[in-house]
Amino acid sequence: MSGVPRKGRFIAFEGGEGTGKSTQARLLADALGRRGLDVAISREPGGTPGAEAIRALLLDPPGEGWGSRAEALLFAAARADHVATLVRPALEAGRWVVCDRFVDSSRAYQGGAGGLGDKAIVDLHAFGSEGLRPDLTILLDLDQQAQRERLTARDGDRFDAIGGRGADYHAEVARTFVRLAHEAPAEWAVVDAHGSEQQVHDRVLAAIAPLLEEVEA
Amino acid sequence: MSGVPRKGRFIAFEGGEGTGKSTQARLLADALGRRGLDVAISREPGGTPGAEAIRALLLDPPGEGWGSRAEALLFAAARADHVATLVRPALEAGRWVVCDRFVDSSRAYQGGAGGLGDKAIVDLHAFGSEGLRPDLTILLDLDQQAQRERLTARDGDRFDAIGGRGADYHAEVARTFVRLAHEAPAEWAVVDAHGSEQQVHDRVLAAIAPLLEEVEA
Repeated sequence: MSGVPRKGRFIAFEGGEGTGKSTQARLLADALGRRGLDVAISREPGGTPGAEAIRALLLDPPGEGWGSRAEALLFAAARADHVATLVRPALEAGRWVVCDRFVDSSRAYQGGAGGLGDKAIVDLHAFGSEGLRPDLTILLDLDQQAQRERLTARDGDRFDAIGGRGADYHAEVARTFVRLAHEAPAEWAVVDAHGSEQQVHDRVLAAIAPLLEEVEA
Repeated sequence: MSGVPRKGRFIAFEGGEGTGKSTQARLLADALGRRGLDVAISREPGGTPGAEAIRALLLDPPGEGWGSRAEALLFAAARADHVATLVRPALEAGRWVVCDRFVDSSRAYQGGAGGLGDKAIVDLHAFGSEGLRPDLTILLDLDQQAQRERLTARDGDRFDAIGGRGADYHAEVARTFVRLAHEAPAEWAVVDAHGSEQQVHDRVLAAIAPLLEEVEA
C-alpha cells in the first residue's frame, strides 16, 4: 500500500474572542507532529495569500464598514480560496489540517449574531466550498467574564471591526456555537476552556483520541 | 407634492471589454444632467470605497489568482456594498443612477463563460443585493474584431486578470449577454455599438426615451 497516502483529518477550533483557539490550535498541531503526522496549521479568515488579503478588508474595512451581507460574502470568498488552495490539497495529500476557525464561525457570527440566519450561511458554504465539513470541530467553551479578561490582557482596548462589537452580539455568538454543537454532537467536541493552557490542551487531546485511533489502527 | 422626490431610474451598461460602456455611461449621465435630472454615475466592480478595494483584489489577485467560486463571491460582495451604500440610497432620493456594468456582467462572465451557471449567480445576487434589477440594461453590441481593435488602441497589451482571458472565454461572454437580452426583452435594449461615440450615444438616447417620458410626463 506504500505510495497511497493515508487520508488526512481536518480539525477546526471554534469559540468567541479570547477563548484560546490559536494557542490550542498550535499546541495540537505540535502534538500531532510529534506523533509523526504531517500537519498543516491554518486560520480563518485567511490561510492563503488571497484569503489573507480579504481578512485585511474584513478586520479594517475601507469606507463606513461592511453591511452584514457583504461581510458574509467576503467570509465565504476567503473560505473558498482557503479550501481550494490549501485545505483540500493538504487533506488529499494525506496531511492533517488544524484550523483556527472555519465555517461555523460564519454560522455563529453572521448567521446567528448578525441575523442572516443559518440557511443563508450554509448555502454560501455549499456554493463556495462544496460544503466541506471538518472531521471534528472543537468548541472552546469559556464564560463571558473569563473571555473578556483574557482579551483585555492580550489586546488592551484595541479591537478590530468584529471583535469590537457589543456584549449582546458576542453573547449571541456564544449561544449559537452551543446550539450548533448540540444539534450535531457527532461532529463537535465541546471542551471546557477554563484553566491553564496545558489543562485545556489535555482535554483537546482526549477529544481527538478517537480520530487518532482511526488512522493509527 | 413638493418634498416627495420623484423616483429615480437605474440604467446599467453591459457588454464585453472595449464595447464603449464607460464612454457611453458618461455621455448619458451628462445628457441626463443637462435635462435637469440629478444623476449618479458609477461602475462595477467598485463605486464605493469598500467595493473599489474588492475591485483591486479581483483585477490584480494576490497569490495564484481566484478560483471561479471565490471570484463570484467577491463580485457579489462588492455589489452588495455598492447597492446598499450608493445605488439604493440614490434611487430612494429620486436620483438617476447610470452604471458601467451590473449583475448581468456576473451572469455573463462567471455564470456563462466561467461555467458556474446562471442560477448560482442569480442566487448570490438575491442574497447580497435583494435581487435589485436596473430599470433598463443597455447591451452595447460590437463584433469581436472591432472590440479587439478598440481594446488594443486603448490598452496596448496590458490586460487585467479578467480582460486577459482567452478569446473563447470572451466569445462566450458575448453569447451569454445576447441570450440574457433575448430572454428578457422588456428589461434590455440591445444597441449597435459600431460607429462614432456620438452615433452610439444617439442610439442610447433613443433606447432610454421611454423611461424619460415616464418621469417627465
